[in-house]
Amino acid sequence: MSWIVEEKCFDRDKIIDNGNKYLTGNGYMGFRGTMEEFTKSEFTCCNLAGVYDRCDGKWRETVNVPNGMFTVLFCEGKELSLLTTESAEHIQKLDIKHGLHTRKTLWHTSCGEINITAERFVSLDNVHLMCMKYSVHFEKACNAVIKTGIDKNVWDINGPHFESCETGTACKLIYAHAVTDELKISTAVFEKLLFDFEANETITSGDDGIYRNIEINALPNIEYTIYKFVSVYTSNDGLGDVIAAASNDVSQAADVGYDKCYDSHAKRWEERWKISDVTLEGDDDAQIALRYSIYHLQIIAPRHTDRTSIAARGLSGQTYKGAIFWDTEMFLLPFYLYTDPETARNLIKYRVKTLEGARRKASGYGFRGAFYAWESQETGDDACSDYNVTDVFTGRPMRTYFKDKQIHISADVAYAVWETYEFLADDSILIDGGAEVILECARFFYSYVYYKEDKHRYEILDVIGTDEYHERVNNNAFTNRMVYHTFDTALKCAKLLECYYKDEFVKLMDKINFRDDLDNISRVKEKLYVPQPDEATGIIEQFDGYFQREDCTLDQVRGRILDSKEYWGGASGIAADTMIIKQADVMLMLYLFGNDYSEVIKQKNWLYYEPRTEHGSSLSPCIYALVACEIGSQQWGYDYFLKTASIDLTGKSKQFAGSIYIGGTHPAASGGAWMVAVFGFAGLHIENGELALSPRLPEKWSKLSFGLIYKGEKYMVEITKSEGRIWKI
Amino acid sequence: MSWIVEEKCFDRDKIIDNGNKYLTGNGYMGFRGTMEEFTKSEFTCCNLAGVYDRCDGKWRETVNVPNGMFTVLFCEGKELSLLTTESAEHIQKLDIKHGLHTRKTLWHTSCGEINITAERFVSLDNVHLMCMKYSVHFEKACNAVIKTGIDKNVWDINGPHFESCETGTACKLIYAHAVTDELKISTAVFEKLLFDFEANETITSGDDGIYRNIEINALPNIEYTIYKFVSVYTSNDGLGDVIAAASNDVSQAADVGYDKCYDSHAKRWEERWKISDVTLEGDDDAQIALRYSIYHLQIIAPRHTDRTSIAARGLSGQTYKGAIFWDTEMFLLPFYLYTDPETARNLIKYRVKTLEGARRKASGYGFRGAFYAWESQETGDDACSDYNVTDVFTGRPMRTYFKDKQIHISADVAYAVWETYEFLADDSILIDGGAEVILECARFFYSYVYYKEDKHRYEILDVIGTDEYHERVNNNAFTNRMVYHTFDTALKCAKLLECYYKDEFVKLMDKINFRDDLDNISRVKEKLYVPQPDEATGIIEQFDGYFQREDCTLDQVRGRILDSKEYWGGASGIAADTMIIKQADVMLMLYLFGNDYSEVIKQKNWLYYEPRTEHGSSLSPCIYALVACEIGSQQWGYDYFLKTASIDLTGKSKQFAGSIYIGGTHPAASGGAWMVAVFGFAGLHIENGELALSPRLPEKWSKLSFGLIYKGEKYMVEITKSEGRIWKI
Repeated sequence: MSWIVEEKCFDRDKIIDNGNKYLTGNGYMGFRGTMEEFTKSEFTCCNLAGVYDRCDGKWRETVNVPNGMFTVLFCEGKELSLLTTESAEHIQKLDIKHGLHTRKTLWHTSCGEINITAERFVSLDNVHLMCMKYSVHFEKACNAVIKTGIDKNVWDINGPHFESCETGTACKLIYAHAVTDELKISTAVFEKLLFDFEANETITSGDDGIYRNIEINALPNIEYTIYKFVSVYTSNDGLGDVIAAASNDVSQAADVGYDKCYDSHAKRWEERWKISDVTLEGDDDAQIALRYSIYHLQIIAPRHTDRTSIAARGLSGQTYKGAIFWDTEMFLLPFYLYTDPETARNLIKYRVKTLEGARRKASGYGFRGAFYAWESQETGDDACSDYNVTDVFTGRPMRTYFKDKQIHISADVAYAVWETYEFLADDSILIDGGAEVILECARFFYSYVYYKEDKHRYEILDVIGTDEYHERVNNNAFTNRMVYHTFDTALKCAKLLECYYKDEFVKLMDKINFRDDLDNISRVKEKLYVPQPDEATGIIEQFDGYFQREDCTLDQVRGRILDSKEYWGGASGIAADTMIIKQADVMLMLYLFGNDYSEVIKQKNWLYYEPRTEHGSSLSPCIYALVACEIGSQQWGYDYFLKTASIDLTGKSKQFAGSIYIGGTHPAASGGAWMVAVFGFAGLHIENGELALSPRLPEKWSKLSFGLIYKGEKYMVEITKSEGRIWKI
Repeated sequence: MSWIVEEKCFDRDKIIDNGNKYLTGNGYMGFRGTMEEFTKSEFTCCNLAGVYDRCDGKWRETVNVPNGMFTVLFCEGKELSLLTTESAEHIQKLDIKHGLHTRKTLWHTSCGEINITAERFVSLDNVHLMCMKYSVHFEKACNAVIKTGIDKNVWDINGPHFESCETGTACKLIYAHAVTDELKISTAVFEKLLFDFEANETITSGDDGIYRNIEINALPNIEYTIYKFVSVYTSNDGLGDVIAAASNDVSQAADVGYDKCYDSHAKRWEERWKISDVTLEGDDDAQIALRYSIYHLQIIAPRHTDRTSIAARGLSGQTYKGAIFWDTEMFLLPFYLYTDPETARNLIKYRVKTLEGARRKASGYGFRGAFYAWESQETGDDACSDYNVTDVFTGRPMRTYFKDKQIHISADVAYAVWETYEFLADDSILIDGGAEVILECARFFYSYVYYKEDKHRYEILDVIGTDEYHERVNNNAFTNRMVYHTFDTALKCAKLLECYYKDEFVKLMDKINFRDDLDNISRVKEKLYVPQPDEATGIIEQFDGYFQREDCTLDQVRGRILDSKEYWGGASGIAADTMIIKQADVMLMLYLFGNDYSEVIKQKNWLYYEPRTEHGSSLSPCIYALVACEIGSQQWGYDYFLKTASIDLTGKSKQFAGSIYIGGTHPAASGGAWMVAVFGFAGLHIENGELALSPRLPEKWSKLSFGLIYKGEKYMVEITKSEGRIWKI
C-alpha cells in the first residue's frame, strides 16, 4: 500500500488542500487534484510551466488554461455533484507509482444508487496530453446526461489572462483557442471523446465554455464509459501551429486508445521510479511520505525544456507568481543531479538563458555582473515586488527587501552550476554558459562588497540571509560564506578554462571584459570577512548584532501575535528584533560547507539555533535534519525529516503571508526529504571522486535502498543496520 | 507694545499652550506660564536644567521640583480660581523686556468684585531665585484666606522622581526637601513670605505640600499684597548644603525686598537686550515674534554652568527627556556666539565634558572615536531609546534609528567647536578639549566609513540624515558633507596645534594615540564621496536612490493618513517610500557650505525640495528662509521666517509623534529666527576676518538693526533700504 494516497470521504473544507495533495503533472503542466465536476470556485486548474502573463498591472504569473477535463453528470435533469448532493461513499486516490488519479463516488438518489468512477493521468509520455476514463453505473434505468467539455472559467489569482478565448468544433474535436493578454501567447486546448454506447450527443457553447451533452437512456447494471483525450499547446512551445499540433495529438491518442496511452505513460513512470525510488524497511509512514515527495519531484521536472525551471509551488497553481526561486538550485537540483541528469542540465541551462535578465537587474541597482532574480520568470527579470506583503493592520503594502537584498540568490546559482559541473564531471556545463554565469555572479559580488579599512576586511552589508525575518543585516554568515564560495569557484573556473580551453577562455574574457575583475576577485576573496565560531561558545553569529537581539522563546513571540495573518518579519514584525529566526540560516551554511566545521561546532550551533527557529519556511526542517545526521544525532533529525517529507500529505503549512495566499505544493521540502534520506541517513557523499557512505539510519529503519546515476553509470545503494553497500547496475 | 505678549481672556483649552507661551526662566530653571492656583493637572512645573532622574525603568528625564509659587484665594470659605469660578475679566501678560509674568483677574462673586493681580519673575540676577508679588482687592468686606506655599504634587511625564520629599518650617521659612530616586540628588525649595497687613497665619502640611493660610478680615478697597521669595538648590550645584544655601537665599532676598530684587533682575535683562535686541521697522508682527524668540533664547541660556547645555524643548518641561540634541550646536549656538560668548563657551565645554560618554557610545557599537549621544544628558551617554515611537495601529513600540544611525550628530558637534574657535578667535577652545573632541569625532567617522573599491571612493552607509522620514539610507549628501568637514577640521586642528602648541600636540597625540588616524583621515578625506549636483538638472540627490522614491505631493501623502497620530517615518510610514521629506536636509547642507555652491544650484534645489518638504520639524523653515535670502528671494523666505519666529506664539506645532507628547517651546526655531534676521536678511558674514553685510530686507521692512560682539568688541549693525552699516560701540 505504500504507493497509494487516498481520501475515504468527501470533506468540503479540504477541497483546496486536496487540490494540492492529489496534484498530477508532467513538468509541462499540472492538473490539480479536484473532482471532474469542480470549477474555478474549487481552485480547479491546469497550470502551465513557464508561460507567464500580466493582467492590468497586477503581478505577472503563470497561466492556467481552460479545463478540458470538465465532466459532470445529470440524472433526470438534476445535477449530481459532490457539491450539490451528499454522497454515500467517496474515495479519492492517487497511485503515485503511475501518476494515476482516481475517484469513486456513490450516491443514493431517487433513481437509486449511482456510481461514478473516473481515472485520469497527465501523460509522462507526451507532455501535452491528459487522458481520462469516466464511467457511470446506474442501479435503475434513468435518463442521464454526461456533460463534458472545456470549461473556460479559469481560476486565476491575478487574472484573467486571456484577451480572447474562442471555442469551436473541428472533425469531432472540440477546442478552446485563447490568446494571452500581455504577450499574445496562443494557447490551444483540444478534446476528443470516445464512447461506444448508444447516446444522443449535442454540443453547446457559451461564455462558460464548450460542452458535449451525452444523453443516455441508461439501463441498470451497465457501465457507461467515456474516454477523454485532452491536449494543450502554446506558441511558447516553438512547435508551429498550436491548433494543428493539439488536434493531431488528441486524434492520435484516441486512435491509440486510452489503455495504450496509459501503458506508455505508466512505462515512463516505471523507468523513473527504477532509478529514483527510495525504499526503506520498518517505517511505513516514512516510506509513503518519502515516495510521495519523490512523486512530486517527478511531476514537476522540466525534462522537456530548458526554457523554464521549477516554480516554488511546482505546478499546483499561480502562488508566488509561478516564479522560480533559489529553492530549485539548493533544494531540488540534488535529486535531479543524482537521478535525472538531463533535468538537472535543463535547470542549469535555464539560468544560463536568463543571464541577461540577471545583468539587467544588477545594473538597475547600480552594480555590475549578474544579480539573479529573486522571483525569476521566463526572461530572468525579477518578478518580485518591492511590496510583497500587505500590512494586516493598515491594509497598506509593506516594503519588503526580498528582491533587492537577498543577494545570496546569485551565489546559489553559481553554487548550483559548479555542483552540476563537478558531479556530472562535464566541462560542457561550464563551456556552454556556466562559466559565464559564475564569473558574472562573482563580478556582481565584487561590485557589491565594501572594504572596512579600519578592520582590514571586506564586508557584505545590507542583506537578507535565508532567515527573512531579519531584514537589511550586515555580514550574514551564510551570505558571506556563499559569496566566498562564488569568488573561489570563479577563480577555479577561470583557471580551468585557461588551462584546458584556452580559446574559449580568451573568447569569454574578451566578451565580458573580465581580466581586471579576475584580479579584483582574487584580492577580495583573501580578505572577505566570513563570521567564524565564537572562541568561547563555538556559536557563529548569524549576522552582525544578532546576539544583541532579544533572546526570547518562540512561544513568547507567538504570544505577541495580534492578528493570525500578521507578518513576522518586516521592519516591525514580531520576530524582527528578537533572535527568533524563520528558517535554517547558519545551519544551512554548516550543511553546505560541512567540511569547514568540526562536529562539535555543528552540534553547538544546532543546539543553539534549533530552539530559535520557527521553521516558517518549508525549506528549513530538512536542513536541521541533515546537520543532525552529520553530528550523529539522526534521531534529532528524524522528526524534521518526517515534517519535510509529509508537508503536502498533511497539508500542514502556512497558507498566508500577510493577506497573500501562499498555498500549494512544496517541492523544496520534497527535495529536502530526498536529501535527508540519501545524504543524511545514508550519508552518501563523494570522497576523492568516488561515491562513499556514512550510514546513520534512524532507529526504526532496518534497511534503506535507492538508486542513482554517477558519471553516466547507474548504481544501487543499500544500507542496513550493519553495513552500507554500493554497486553498479 | 512690541515687548508685551498677552492673553485677554481665560481659555481652558489653551492652558497647556500658554504654559509654554508664558514660560519664564533663567537657564537654571524654567517656570511654566500657568496661573498661581494651578497644579500638576494644568502642567504647572518648575523644571530644572541638567538634573536628570530615571524612575522605575522609564525614560530618564529632567526633574521638576515642588512648586514654591503655589497660591490660591478663598473667600468666605470658597475657593476662587480660574478653574472653579468663571472670571469677569482676565489678563495674562508677559513683559519680555524684563522677563516679568503678570496675571490680573476679576471675579464677580457674592462678596462683590474681587481682583487678583500677581506678578512674578525667575531671577536673572540669582538663578536660584523666583519672586512673586500677589495682591488681592475686595469690593466688599469679607473673610478671605490666601493659601500659599509649596505644592509637592509635581507634574511628571515619567515620574515620580523623588523617593522622599519632606516639608517643614525653619525660622519663618517653609521648605520642601526632596531626594531623587535614581541618583539621590538632594533638592531644596525654600519659601519666605512677607506681608504687612493684619492677618492670622497658620501653617499646614500634608501629602500635598506645605502651606501658609493667611486669614484676613478683608476691608473693601484695600490692596492686600504678599511677597513670595522662593529659592531652589540641588546637590548638583556643587555648592555644599542645599538647605543652608536655599534658606540663605530667600532670607537675603526678603531682606533686600521685592522691588530691589526685581530691579537687579530687570537690570540683567536690560544688559542682555542691549547687545541681543534686533529691532526692525515696518513690520510689528515680525518685530514681536523675533523679540519673543530672543526672549526664549535668553531664558534658557546656561550662563551659570558648563555642566549642561540647552534641551530641545528648553525649560518648558520634560518633553524629549530634557535631553540635548544637535539643535543646540546648529541652531542655537550662533545666537550665543554673536551675543553672549560666555554661554557659547559653556555649550562647547558641555560637549568636551561629555566626550567620555560619546566614546562609550562609539565603542558600544563597535566603532572607535566619539559618537555623540542623539539625546544627551549629564554624562553624554545616549538617553535615546531604540523604540522612540509607538505604532498607533498595534500599540507596539516601533524600532527607530535616531540613536544609532543619525551619525551626523558627531559632525555637528565638531562643526560647532570649530565655529566657536574660529569666531571667537580663541585657541583655548581647542586646547581645552575642543581639539580632542574634533579629532575623536573624525576618528569615529574614519571607523564608520567604507571603501567602495569598484567606485574608488569612501562611502557613508546606513544613516539617517536630518530628514528622519527616510531611515537607513546610504550617502546622505548632508551627512557626507558634514563628515568631510569633520575630517577637514580635524586635519586643520592638528596642524594648528602642531605648529603653535607643540607640547599640547604631542601630549594629545600620545594621550589618544592618534598619529595613525591622522594619516587615515587625510587619506579618506581625499576620496570621500560627497553627492554633487546632477549635471543635467543641478539637483543634489538627498541620498542614494532618493530620486527613485515615489514623487507625490504633500497633499497626496496627507490623504493616506489613517490615524492623525501615526508616524510618517519608520520603515513603513506614509512618507518613507516617497520623496516627501520631514525637514531641510540638502538645503541645510547648501546653507552651511554656501560657498561651495553657486546661486543657481541653490535656487534649483530650493525650488525642487521646497514643495517636497513637510516641515514636520521646527528646525526646517528657518533653513529654507536662509537659503532663500542667499538666492536673492527673501520674499520666499519671509513666510518661513514668520513661521519659525512665531511657532511658540501661535502654538502651532506638532504635539504628538506616535502617541508620545512632544509639546513645549522650540528653542531651535527661536535660534533660527535670529539667524534668518541676522545672517539672512542682513546678510551678516565674515569676510577675510572682518564683519561684512549682504543686506536683502523683506519688502515690508524699512530698517533692521542689532548688536553683536566680535573678537571681544561690541558692534551695532543697521540695515536700511539703501545701505548697511556696522560700527563699534
